[in-house]
Amino acid sequence: MSILAVGSIAFDAVETPFGSREQILGGSCTHFAIAASFFTSVNVVAVVGEDFTDEQLAVFKSRKINTAGLERRPGKTFRWKGKYGYDLNTRETIYTHLNVFADFDPKIPEEFKDTPFLFLGNISPKLQLEVFKNTRPRFTALDTMNYWIESTPDELRELLQFVDLLIINDEEARELAREANLIKAARKILSFGPKRLVVKRGEYGAAMFSQESYFAMPAFPTEDVFDPTGAGDTFAGGFIGYLAAVNSTDENDMRRAMIYASVMASFNVEEFGCDRMLRLTYREINERFKYFKRIMHFEEIEFERKSV
Amino acid sequence: MSILAVGSIAFDAVETPFGSREQILGGSCTHFAIAASFFTSVNVVAVVGEDFTDEQLAVFKSRKINTAGLERRPGKTFRWKGKYGYDLNTRETIYTHLNVFADFDPKIPEEFKDTPFLFLGNISPKLQLEVFKNTRPRFTALDTMNYWIESTPDELRELLQFVDLLIINDEEARELAREANLIKAARKILSFGPKRLVVKRGEYGAAMFSQESYFAMPAFPTEDVFDPTGAGDTFAGGFIGYLAAVNSTDENDMRRAMIYASVMASFNVEEFGCDRMLRLTYREINERFKYFKRIMHFEEIEFERKSV
Repeated sequence: MSILAVGSIAFDAVETPFGSREQILGGSCTHFAIAASFFTSVNVVAVVGEDFTDEQLAVFKSRKINTAGLERRPGKTFRWKGKYGYDLNTRETIYTHLNVFADFDPKIPEEFKDTPFLFLGNISPKLQLEVFKNTRPRFTALDTMNYWIESTPDELRELLQFVDLLIINDEEARELAREANLIKAARKILSFGPKRLVVKRGEYGAAMFSQESYFAMPAFPTEDVFDPTGAGDTFAGGFIGYLAAVNSTDENDMRRAMIYASVMASFNVEEFGCDRMLRLTYREINERFKYFKRIMHFEEIEFERKSV
Repeated sequence: MSILAVGSIAFDAVETPFGSREQILGGSCTHFAIAASFFTSVNVVAVVGEDFTDEQLAVFKSRKINTAGLERRPGKTFRWKGKYGYDLNTRETIYTHLNVFADFDPKIPEEFKDTPFLFLGNISPKLQLEVFKNTRPRFTALDTMNYWIESTPDELRELLQFVDLLIINDEEARELAREANLIKAARKILSFGPKRLVVKRGEYGAAMFSQESYFAMPAFPTEDVFDPTGAGDTFAGGFIGYLAAVNSTDENDMRRAMIYASVMASFNVEEFGCDRMLRLTYREINERFKYFKRIMHFEEIEFERKSV
């Protein structure tokens, strides 16, 4: 099955303790689509400015991503600059220039409207809702962020009723539920409507909740995080990419999707922007999948001390 | 095999958002020994004051813990009071009265000196080293804390050369290695001497490192942490208790020890002090062990998109 991804395309500038780089191709749609393209065909809907050239388009083409929904408008592409602290866990935004993204009004090509899997990247819940109502997905996944949780809670809550999968981070989950304990927060969020919740916890791994099941895993033990930008969208791309590829939403495949999601994100942070992803091989992906199996494996036993 | 545990016995007072309690039997040695006693016989060496009565002794006796190394001295038992923040992740110390613990000079009964498994609870590295040199353990596990990492780094580093297993938390590991990335920190700590390192990460689970292996697991999804006091020592008690019981230090058993450690800690936080542990059953322990298997399980697969 194919995926329709709606989100941002951006030029990022990043400063890390290891160096800095300007004019990196980024944005939620970009990172998501590149990761998902390893698993299935991806249709993107996004807006770019006149500074988006054939060079950037070639990146999408190299991954066979369908860019028929890419709107080019007068002006500049969304630009963001961030600076990471020494342990890469803290991030400061230096600037956010929305540019053409400020008036993003997703136009879904007719040919995209029946795409079975829909990924609503982190844009305003109002736009996400419009896209959802304007398409006929069989499975809808949603990302959001604190900004929308705080500024448009009603639209977000309306949207959550229709969502099959919400993928957010730890902090966002606690804020959305207004609950410090993540397990309680997850239960509350599921009561808002989503069939499933995936919580990304950075270096601590990820957890997945549904009414009937719970799955949790550690992160890949990365020694040198080089650039964390886009890790969350890459995670989502691996997750939904795998699900769409096998056209399944059963628990076993959801769990494998968690592993592929973590695998893809772990590669993405190894270099600036999408650099690592663009030379990633299936051998590397599947090796890292197996590595997760090894580091999480243990054998069952029953113990009882008879003499106490 | 049996275990020799050296550490503190204390009267704790705890304030949590759910209530407060005075005069709780606590201390590293207490929490460790109670957890370990579910797996094997435990000999304790600790000091208490005149306020330690038959009531407290009965707790140790109820778990068949050998208290021949319990020294009673004039004065009061170690007393600590802590106050937990609303999400129980932050803790403020209200007071620490060392009392008889200030001059703790562990006296190891002759009959304890050949105990095969030694647990050096969180006391000064100088005392831990003395205990180690004064006994003949086959396997030595060590706990410590930021205070000792900062104030007696040389003694701690000397001790680390002899240690089979270091069990500390996330923050302590980063401080000991002076390295923000936990994976790098672990590698550096292993270079100091310990054969194995276990890092406790609270609600995020735990990770285990050796030169040849890595294992990581999530925490039990506790909705209501009631009192986190003693969770770390209970974890250590479950870990070393299981290892000593099966008299094994191979990778498979080390991993099972991680699970039992997490299981025991997860019960300990459910009620004040040792209350939950004192009515814990093997059925509950083994059920929760199996639960970990379920929440961490996924099936392997190989994926390759043929058409890209």
